[in-house]
Amino acid sequence: MQAEIITIGDEILIGQIVDTNSAFIAKELNKIGVSVYQITSVQDDRDHILQSLKEAGERSSVVIITGGLGPTKDDVTKHTLCEFFEDELVQDKTVLNHIEELFKKYINTPISDLNRQQALVPTKATVLHNAFGTAPGLWMKKGNTAFVSLPGVPYEMKNLMTRSVLPKIVEDYERPYILHKTIMTYGLGESAIADKIEDWENNLPSFIKFAYLPSLGRVRLRLSAKGTDKDFLMAAITDEAKKLHPLIGDIIVGEEEDESIEYQIGKLLTDKQLTLSTAESFTGGKIAEHITSIAGASKYFKGSVVSYATEMKVKLLNVPEELIQQHSVVSEEVAISMAQNVKTIMQTDFAIATTGNAGPTKGDSDSDVGTVYIAISTPEHTFAQQFNMGNLRERVVEKSVNKAFELLFKEILKF
Amino acid sequence: MQAEIITIGDEILIGQIVDTNSAFIAKELNKIGVSVYQITSVQDDRDHILQSLKEAGERSSVVIITGGLGPTKDDVTKHTLCEFFEDELVQDKTVLNHIEELFKKYINTPISDLNRQQALVPTKATVLHNAFGTAPGLWMKKGNTAFVSLPGVPYEMKNLMTRSVLPKIVEDYERPYILHKTIMTYGLGESAIADKIEDWENNLPSFIKFAYLPSLGRVRLRLSAKGTDKDFLMAAITDEAKKLHPLIGDIIVGEEEDESIEYQIGKLLTDKQLTLSTAESFTGGKIAEHITSIAGASKYFKGSVVSYATEMKVKLLNVPEELIQQHSVVSEEVAISMAQNVKTIMQTDFAIATTGNAGPTKGDSDSDVGTVYIAISTPEHTFAQQFNMGNLRERVVEKSVNKAFELLFKEILKF
Repeated sequence: MQAEIITIGDEILIGQIVDTNSAFIAKELNKIGVSVYQITSVQDDRDHILQSLKEAGERSSVVIITGGLGPTKDDVTKHTLCEFFEDELVQDKTVLNHIEELFKKYINTPISDLNRQQALVPTKATVLHNAFGTAPGLWMKKGNTAFVSLPGVPYEMKNLMTRSVLPKIVEDYERPYILHKTIMTYGLGESAIADKIEDWENNLPSFIKFAYLPSLGRVRLRLSAKGTDKDFLMAAITDEAKKLHPLIGDIIVGEEEDESIEYQIGKLLTDKQLTLSTAESFTGGKIAEHITSIAGASKYFKGSVVSYATEMKVKLLNVPEELIQQHSVVSEEVAISMAQNVKTIMQTDFAIATTGNAGPTKGDSDSDVGTVYIAISTPEHTFAQQFNMGNLRERVVEKSVNKAFELLFKEILKF
Repeated sequence: MQAEIITIGDEILIGQIVDTNSAFIAKELNKIGVSVYQITSVQDDRDHILQSLKEAGERSSVVIITGGLGPTKDDVTKHTLCEFFEDELVQDKTVLNHIEELFKKYINTPISDLNRQQALVPTKATVLHNAFGTAPGLWMKKGNTAFVSLPGVPYEMKNLMTRSVLPKIVEDYERPYILHKTIMTYGLGESAIADKIEDWENNLPSFIKFAYLPSLGRVRLRLSAKGTDKDFLMAAITDEAKKLHPLIGDIIVGEEEDESIEYQIGKLLTDKQLTLSTAESFTGGKIAEHITSIAGASKYFKGSVVSYATEMKVKLLNVPEELIQQHSVVSEEVAISMAQNVKTIMQTDFAIATTGNAGPTKGDSDSDVGTVYIAISTPEHTFAQQFNMGNLRERVVEKSVNKAFELLFKEILKF
């Protein structure tokens, strides 16, 4: 069965915000066997919304609409939905009570008529309770298609999807299984991999789709299977994934279901009861931020010294001044010293250190923009590698963060 | 004049990646006066691509297509474009030379037939040079509509947009000006603001559009004006924005053109030659990461101590153990001590410190999930404020980072 997503809001079409809602909705629908056929972002405009509702409804069984449900007058979604369903708005007592409670509890300003108007819902709609906000979700049917309108605020939308929309779809519709397996590789480009696995790819069964996903120095390989027998599908993609190891086993770092490499590092460290610290220069805290984005990171992550200024490498990380003078602050020696010292200071088993020049100007060293050193310290040894990450600041940092996690991941696997 | 964006790729429709390309393209088009009517994400599927090209071409003068140009066989875009234009592929010598050069310079694997095939382009296409990758951009016309196909890799796409596509649109099309002004507010909800500025909003001239953009505890207010006389438009939105100050001046933090609050903080610190350090607990380096995402941050940012484990607050930040025992690690006193001490250690003018519990479990203190303290230290004083940021881990961190920047911004303005 097939769904579509419509996001409403000029802020997406003028590029003021990135549409992260659609990725979340698509992923969650996929998990319950619903394919998303199309995502359409349209303007806060009556005619445009009506047109997109009509088209999506003709193609798909479920249409999820986000955005445009706020209390202010720039929002047209609810009125346009009413028009589409030839319906009218009536006050919903439960919603009104909920809005009044939210205001009492969390909001210091008095409730206004604008807020009360959020309790107006189309008579034909099933109201979905929005625990975190004042705009309720709405579930409406036209012919065989369900139209679900959700607020655009991401955490309100996510809560409504998880608590109300997904369970209702599971209950109301028969769905096939859609399973994915993503294999993470590093060190080889898309076409070089394709050459090596050409025969394998040509012999894949027709219910398995295969895709290359290149990103910042890695290529992920995704196998997707769709069908009604979950165990059979899982066995088939597991089997096909296994066949890749004799072909490209040397570049495979692991499998990713939903999980990032930092999640997998966290899981390994937790299981093995090992700890980690970081010393970051040009990555500016981004490695620590990625590590601590994982719930439970406090079990294995002690902290980071973000020594952005050169003097802080001396003062906080005890990097010898002579070492910096002799080799420059962007050097293998300084990276190694940072990693060893932060590991000692924080008394951890592993440490990551970065020093480099992300640009756009040369900064405290003579190194070229894009030259970086990443050091890994393990219970047994410490080493650093040099990389040239190009000359785009943001990309230099992102590629380096990825690379640091890859290097660390391979080392942790040895313990 | 009107444009559309079509992104091609199953990875978007299964939610594996977030479509950041469209936001970039939309923003850049807007800057040169091109309105984006719709963004459509479609599958790697011939029929679906053909249908979307046809529909977009009927509505808009320029259609920008991203994705599906990689060297491997999961890509159908180029062949489908050929079909749409009733054209065929021929080898482009310049592109082939460029691919061969890239391989010689950067890629250690030998060039393959798959790579060479990327030099095949439709005969009717104007080739746009992709400096950073092997897949060229293509500019093709059908009737009055230009179809522009770009690779999906963000930095390749961005470079092609900036160097080739935008200049060509500027040259080929007459465009109006579209100007935006975004006013950042904090501390009041969308509907409370709407109540206060109702009369103002009702009296806006018809060529100015107004929108509320609520996000993580702040509401941004956006004024957009469209027309042919740039000076007149700029004067009009500046004038309307000014009228907001008597109405809601107490909640306005500043104006944002393209600029984030961390950019503005960086600008102020650079201008005033003042410096900043941070001591982060539950925010895990995210504040430092935001600060260092701004080019030139090394002028004012010295570094951060990410003291994730309680012991690191004692060891690296000299927070007295007794203070932690007496008040708990999540307390006003500890936040203040962290801010004062990191400022002293790093010898900076300002410091931010955070301590709190982002959840999902209680961690090293008895504080409720979501309870956080943010401390700001200035050349004159140090203070901490308590907040309850709810019980969603990611959101607790994001709201706290925003709040920390807001508090700091207001303090820096005083110097």
